[in-house]
Amino acid sequence: MAEIKEPIEGYGLSKKQGERALFSRIGVVGCGRDGRSIVNLTAQSGLEVVFIEISQEKIQDALSEIEHSLDTKIENWGLTQSEKRATMGRITGSLDYNDLKDCDFVIECIRYEANGERSIALRKEVFRRLEEVLAPDAVIATNATTVIISELSADLVHKERCVSIHFPMSHSDARLLEIVKGIFTTSEVLEKVIRFAHLIKHIPVEVRESSGLVSMRLMVVMLNEACHILMENLASLEDIDKEFTIIYGQRYGIFELADLQGIEKIVMLMEDMFREYGDKKYKASPILWRLYHSKQYGVKERRGFYIYDETGKRLGVNNLI
Amino acid sequence: MAEIKEPIEGYGLSKKQGERALFSRIGVVGCGRDGRSIVNLTAQSGLEVVFIEISQEKIQDALSEIEHSLDTKIENWGLTQSEKRATMGRITGSLDYNDLKDCDFVIECIRYEANGERSIALRKEVFRRLEEVLAPDAVIATNATTVIISELSADLVHKERCVSIHFPMSHSDARLLEIVKGIFTTSEVLEKVIRFAHLIKHIPVEVRESSGLVSMRLMVVMLNEACHILMENLASLEDIDKEFTIIYGQRYGIFELADLQGIEKIVMLMEDMFREYGDKKYKASPILWRLYHSKQYGVKERRGFYIYDETGKRLGVNNLI
Amino acid sequence: MAEIKEPIEGYGLSKKQGERALFSRIGVVGCGRDGRSIVNLTAQSGLEVVFIEISQEKIQDALSEIEHSLDTKIENWGLTQSEKRATMGRITGSLDYNDLKDCDFVIECIRYEANGERSIALRKEVFRRLEEVLAPDAVIATNATTVIISELSADLVHKERCVSIHFPMSHSDARLLEIVKGIFTTSEVLEKVIRFAHLIKHIPVEVRESSGLVSMRLMVVMLNEACHILMENLASLEDIDKEFTIIYGQRYGIFELADLQGIEKIVMLMEDMFREYGDKKYKASPILWRLYHSKQYGVKERRGFYIYDETGKRLGVNNLI
Amino acid sequence: MAEIKEPIEGYGLSKKQGERALFSRIGVVGCGRDGRSIVNLTAQSGLEVVFIEISQEKIQDALSEIEHSLDTKIENWGLTQSEKRATMGRITGSLDYNDLKDCDFVIECIRYEANGERSIALRKEVFRRLEEVLAPDAVIATNATTVIISELSADLVHKERCVSIHFPMSHSDARLLEIVKGIFTTSEVLEKVIRFAHLIKHIPVEVRESSGLVSMRLMVVMLNEACHILMENLASLEDIDKEFTIIYGQRYGIFELADLQGIEKIVMLMEDMFREYGDKKYKASPILWRLYHSKQYGVKERRGFYIYDETGKRLGVNNLI
Amino acid sequence: MAEIKEPIEGYGLSKKQGERALFSRIGVVGCGRDGRSIVNLTAQSGLEVVFIEISQEKIQDALSEIEHSLDTKIENWGLTQSEKRATMGRITGSLDYNDLKDCDFVIECIRYEANGERSIALRKEVFRRLEEVLAPDAVIATNATTVIISELSADLVHKERCVSIHFPMSHSDARLLEIVKGIFTTSEVLEKVIRFAHLIKHIPVEVRESSGLVSMRLMVVMLNEACHILMENLASLEDIDKEFTIIYGQRYGIFELADLQGIEKIVMLMEDMFREYGDKKYKASPILWRLYHSKQYGVKERRGFYIYDETGKRLGVNNLI
Amino acid sequence: MAEIKEPIEGYGLSKKQGERALFSRIGVVGCGRDGRSIVNLTAQSGLEVVFIEISQEKIQDALSEIEHSLDTKIENWGLTQSEKRATMGRITGSLDYNDLKDCDFVIECIRYEANGERSIALRKEVFRRLEEVLAPDAVIATNATTVIISELSADLVHKERCVSIHFPMSHSDARLLEIVKGIFTTSEVLEKVIRFAHLIKHIPVEVRESSGLVSMRLMVVMLNEACHILMENLASLEDIDKEFTIIYGQRYGIFELADLQGIEKIVMLMEDMFREYGDKKYKASPILWRLYHSKQYGVKERRGFYIYDETGKRLGVNNLI
Repeated sequence: MAEIKEPIEGYGLSKKQGERALFSRIGVVGCGRDGRSIVNLTAQSGLEVVFIEISQEKIQDALSEIEHSLDTKIENWGLTQSEKRATMGRITGSLDYNDLKDCDFVIECIRYEANGERSIALRKEVFRRLEEVLAPDAVIATNATTVIISELSADLVHKERCVSIHFPMSHSDARLLEIVKGIFTTSEVLEKVIRFAHLIKHIPVEVRESSGLVSMRLMVVMLNEACHILMENLASLEDIDKEFTIIYGQRYGIFELADLQGIEKIVMLMEDMFREYGDKKYKASPILWRLYHSKQYGVKERRGFYIYDETGKRLGVNNLI
Repeated sequence: MAEIKEPIEGYGLSKKQGERALFSRIGVVGCGRDGRSIVNLTAQSGLEVVFIEISQEKIQDALSEIEHSLDTKIENWGLTQSEKRATMGRITGSLDYNDLKDCDFVIECIRYEANGERSIALRKEVFRRLEEVLAPDAVIATNATTVIISELSADLVHKERCVSIHFPMSHSDARLLEIVKGIFTTSEVLEKVIRFAHLIKHIPVEVRESSGLVSMRLMVVMLNEACHILMENLASLEDIDKEFTIIYGQRYGIFELADLQGIEKIVMLMEDMFREYGDKKYKASPILWRLYHSKQYGVKERRGFYIYDETGKRLGVNNLI
Repeated sequence: MAEIKEPIEGYGLSKKQGERALFSRIGVVGCGRDGRSIVNLTAQSGLEVVFIEISQEKIQDALSEIEHSLDTKIENWGLTQSEKRATMGRITGSLDYNDLKDCDFVIECIRYEANGERSIALRKEVFRRLEEVLAPDAVIATNATTVIISELSADLVHKERCVSIHFPMSHSDARLLEIVKGIFTTSEVLEKVIRFAHLIKHIPVEVRESSGLVSMRLMVVMLNEACHILMENLASLEDIDKEFTIIYGQRYGIFELADLQGIEKIVMLMEDMFREYGDKKYKASPILWRLYHSKQYGVKERRGFYIYDETGKRLGVNNLI
Repeated sequence: MAEIKEPIEGYGLSKKQGERALFSRIGVVGCGRDGRSIVNLTAQSGLEVVFIEISQEKIQDALSEIEHSLDTKIENWGLTQSEKRATMGRITGSLDYNDLKDCDFVIECIRYEANGERSIALRKEVFRRLEEVLAPDAVIATNATTVIISELSADLVHKERCVSIHFPMSHSDARLLEIVKGIFTTSEVLEKVIRFAHLIKHIPVEVRESSGLVSMRLMVVMLNEACHILMENLASLEDIDKEFTIIYGQRYGIFELADLQGIEKIVMLMEDMFREYGDKKYKASPILWRLYHSKQYGVKERRGFYIYDETGKRLGVNNLI
Repeated sequence: MAEIKEPIEGYGLSKKQGERALFSRIGVVGCGRDGRSIVNLTAQSGLEVVFIEISQEKIQDALSEIEHSLDTKIENWGLTQSEKRATMGRITGSLDYNDLKDCDFVIECIRYEANGERSIALRKEVFRRLEEVLAPDAVIATNATTVIISELSADLVHKERCVSIHFPMSHSDARLLEIVKGIFTTSEVLEKVIRFAHLIKHIPVEVRESSGLVSMRLMVVMLNEACHILMENLASLEDIDKEFTIIYGQRYGIFELADLQGIEKIVMLMEDMFREYGDKKYKASPILWRLYHSKQYGVKERRGFYIYDETGKRLGVNNLI
Repeated sequence: MAEIKEPIEGYGLSKKQGERALFSRIGVVGCGRDGRSIVNLTAQSGLEVVFIEISQEKIQDALSEIEHSLDTKIENWGLTQSEKRATMGRITGSLDYNDLKDCDFVIECIRYEANGERSIALRKEVFRRLEEVLAPDAVIATNATTVIISELSADLVHKERCVSIHFPMSHSDARLLEIVKGIFTTSEVLEKVIRFAHLIKHIPVEVRESSGLVSMRLMVVMLNEACHILMENLASLEDIDKEFTIIYGQRYGIFELADLQGIEKIVMLMEDMFREYGDKKYKASPILWRLYHSKQYGVKERRGFYIYDETGKRLGVNNLI
């Protein structure tokens, strides 16, 4: 595996400006939860961003949500009003793929389907349309945890510019970006993505094409083992979460984290991993299936391993597990 | 499972003094790495401690090591000279079990054998001798991760006072104590141990008798999965460690942690878990076996997943894995 | 799990009549093998039953089959002619869902598809039509072994009245009814179903939503192990069956039972269980697959583990296994 | 596998007497629980029995226990006083192997060790001493569930007369005898054992040498699956037992049966089966290990899955599982 | 399993001519890679062959390819010009199923779909059309490795004449033919196929219906184990291949063989086997998935485990594995 | 892994003589089956060999056996009388380790114990004695398939000269030598062993320390899968062997090979591999256990998968499997 040698610390300001010049504009297709988060990160790092949505209303919603999250940051003293204005000024929403034509780096982030999966066909269509408007050396990335970049890029003329990226967790301190080279991806393209990671202050980690990449495979085995321990009645749910936070120092207990990520997404991902590896350790524990079958998906539904109020505040353990 | 309801925050100072009075004196049998750490914790929490060793020389070694660690803490501004003196003043070493006779809580911590396991026979002997000198209501605890408390206590007259405890990690922030009730243990005894945990500022977590308890089962599946990811060549060793620290916020990368804990202990524990559960997920990965067979046990041998200099400073990745 | 405390023996006659009054009428949708069996059980217990079928001819067939089974019971001195007349008098067949409108308990029993599975879509349609005609507090039940009640009820207005029930075996002595609460089911509804179980003289057993519930998971592991023993050539097929009946006292040998239940249904159920649990112990043994692939499904096809004549009488072991 | 064709029903009285003549005398070495049961069965079937014990006291104990069990049978109208006297008259206890010299069929039944296993060395010694006193064509049998007959007989001169037998359950209706041919056993010897089975009114079932034979493999998978269902909290312990008795018609619920058989024996047997097959389905469930580690072995200890009083009467479920 | 006793060596020339008379004409439907190979084999063995294709152009292509392969054989002194002419003279291509009407043995060999699988529906259609034109006692065979003959023949009038055959490897020395009886196949039909095998100088091996038959199950476990050894970095790819050829004497190293057979076909077959057996040992190793996902299928794509030039000559190891 | 680049073909005669000079004398400790084979190979390659045995009688036996095997080779025209004399002239037997003192390469080959394993303690003693007499740069090798070289060499002064070698099969065409570097082994030592391999005309393959190395892991999975296929009754034993020889071109069918190698050794090796990997695929199939338990170990005992006469000629299939 090619080494990613350039240390993040080495990027002085002036160098950064030089780097930034490499990216005249970033494009994002789809501005749901993941898309907004990328738009936000990018604009706060000083880059111009254009995002594509399917209706004027959705564009407006996305902009409001982004503004709202910046306001929250201001309240926490993490941003000034003028910085917010500058950030918002770098963001443009559009209905038209042609507005991406000057972008040298576009990330596809279309929404998940009801079944927790984004359609390959839809994504291929996005890739095809991007190739129509972009310059031949613009990078096209998809945001995914399962094996697809070689497949998505198969029909393009310039396959070598396609790459897959994955932000494992939406948390301001979890600044690590998983980067997956497809079979056709050139090392120049890889270098560009690494530079992009540095610009948005993330540690780039190169990962091979595989189901769940590294981050989700780790999460899935931690969660499944915790569920087995709970099922064997060895310790209480809350105590197991304390083991993660107090002993290992994790930000969240694993049950807390599963509720945040969404149990339906995790179970679907585990099914995908079981399909690829055939190993029982990736098969969702009966506890996860029970939450999945009864649509207790976590914070969003206010029920998962824990119970939450409408603001997402935790009220206690879910006794129906 | 009985709930441990008393919140750690609730312990005001005066209450603590009351509590402290419950424990006139703590005993520790065996003052190797684990024993010293317990003696140290206990004395710094204001309790009197007596420890038993098998030679005057070993007593002296233990006292020097403890003093050395307190000096380090002073250098880091975590302790004053007078606190150090007070702490050392609360510690007594002895060759004679009779010096434990006033203790109301004694913890057995005898050293590991060459093969990574402490002998059951030896421990039973310690228990027998403790029962000879202690008051009938003094608590006898063993420090262990595998199932033994019911077995160790089987020959005693007062089986109900025996309990197993486990400090999962030696780190000043990892203040969690796993407590295992045996089949004979009364809830009064459990209560006493919980109070002890509070006095030494640890979160008590009650865990059922089982191989690896909770903390080590979690560690073992994280480590094994990380080894499989490494073996499949999905990411580099250092990048996998970054996933643990940056994404999940853990104190250590899992390979780093394994080197600190000692690979021989982990592999032996995994064998024990495989013997109990028969599940391949607990069977040491070929990478772990290779380190084990070639005695590259981690920091102590200066070779494990990483390479270290004589002071334990990491020099780089071990290319012989 | 809520305890089901009311003992079946406690139900004296007068109390029963009181209970019976609670159920003015029972409805059954679909009168194939399973439906007829429920209609029969219910009418013999003194309750009025209405069943829905899709053609006048199917109604007539169902009534004839029920009458035939009552005649058989008379021949075995288990019923008198007048009891038979009374029973038949309590049964009504209909083509029209409106005839269910007075029912306070309706059980969906539509037929299995060719592939051994009933379509979810079809069942949802039945549920929708039932809700149109029934009172809001009438209970709607489905007869199933795999996880679906939460899914089936998801689109209804009164989800809380839906429940899943399962009669594990059609045998006059196997009087146990598995009852599955969905996530929305209230305990009042559960109570009603328990009363219904008592009225038809079945022991109610509350089971959580899961693939195969309890009864079929037990059967499947017994059958698969027996197949492995047969495959390893440790004992003859008939001797293995004797172990079940003579040592453990089971009504049927496990191979005999599989032939009765239908091997295609069992294999489909095992696939469902493997999909949920990913454990090889639920994967049909090569012997089962061979019978399945060659459509030797058991008694109905006159070939399964054993060979049968047209009346279902066993002729000997199937040498083509 | 050789077929065992002779039907048990075919044995008319006069034929039986002829058969009986074939066995002038039966010998039993060791008269613990299993041995007594065989002595009892044999004498009640009209055969002369000599048993060997290691002290006069143990002989007396064995005779009293047998007499006591016959008295119980009289109370239940299953035996008359004169039949009892005749039965007791056919039983002789002895300290001397020479008293076995006229026996044409001797069964070794020495006691289990503390660890649940009988020593191979001890058994080999018994076999050696039997060969010294017996006629060359007398059959020597061992009573066992794990693979040993080929090993036990390896040092004898007349290996061809050795055979292994197993009474799967001590219950007056469970009249099935598993018979295992070793590699050297002739079919004449097998025929003799089959005749013996008929004489004591048991169905003979020929089984190949393997760990757990057929009966115990079936029991072990039923028990382990039931434990998993319990652990997953799908149904209550008592309800799971009802599924076995009501649906499948078994004499005992599986948890009840495990308590009767002794959990320590079952766990040891499972370990043996795991050692041979390496399949997780034979590895004792965490619930079984917990009972095993805490010495809650079942009826004898008054605690197992259920709690019992001193007479073995069930008091309720064991809440410490 | 019926024994195949007739030894291949016993077939003298005159007997062979008698046998040949049994087969007036052989038919082949579909003349892709597998079909051509069968046509070629058959014609060289002195039998008349008619093959069906879907266009005149495809007929011409097939004939050219066959002629080309005969020319290669001439160059290697394995054939004379006049033998070639005789062989080509026995081959006829046709667009019309009616031209098969005199055939007494027809083999269906239609092409694989893009996804590596031939459609069941398409094959059933071929079977139906064959039955329309063939005499009732003509044998219909399909060329397959997965379970389907009982299914394919289910709708035919003369099911008893259907059989499945499999040529495990296209190599002039690998003359073994796997023959699978369906549930309806008579032994006369089996005999005919065995005679056909002898005529084309192949050893017939009767195999039961199952996924992967015997040949592919063996290949798949060899390949998967070799991949695991490679992944664990125990030896180099080329050295592992040498172990197969030098130690065991195989014609090809296993990686070499996989590249020849096509990795996409092998992975699809493994998925089929995992679906049937549920055993992880049949689940493609991560290395195989990586080649599969990136469409490095082997010799045809010039990239697989090794790299090849356009003529199929091996250039070295593929470093992108 | 270090590359072994030197091609075997490159060794011209004069170069060989140069190489030979590097090895003045080869030593072998233990002259059982494996030892004799090494002595023979080495002497035929023109090197002087000294072997150590424990009695004059055993020395004589070894020499006779070697002479006998050379005579057989002469009969097959593979050797002349004068070559035989020269070969025998290069071999010396001795009782005294001091006779090894001029050797620059000594191979330990002591006999297997009854249980199929050579004692580590005994081997360590041999190593210790070798170090006493040998020059510090003489290479010490052990002949083994399981992980031990790092362990065996741990107590020596010159650990860096220890290495493990393995001749996977005793067949004149299977000329491949597996070489295992221990953790201390230098690359100079590795180079020497590679040169030795070339001198005896074997392909050297470098393998990492692990249970079963590469050759035996491959054999074990082939054998186990073949046993499963046999147990599932998919094909006959002889036909399965034909698949190996005809399709894949192996020298022996796998059952034939197992009989040659000795089933007790293979089962013991599989147990070792299961202990290390915990994967069921290495656990001996019930068929192998049955042969093992009944001591039908293969050719030597004249019974294994096949039956043999006293000269080792195969008589047919063993029907007692």
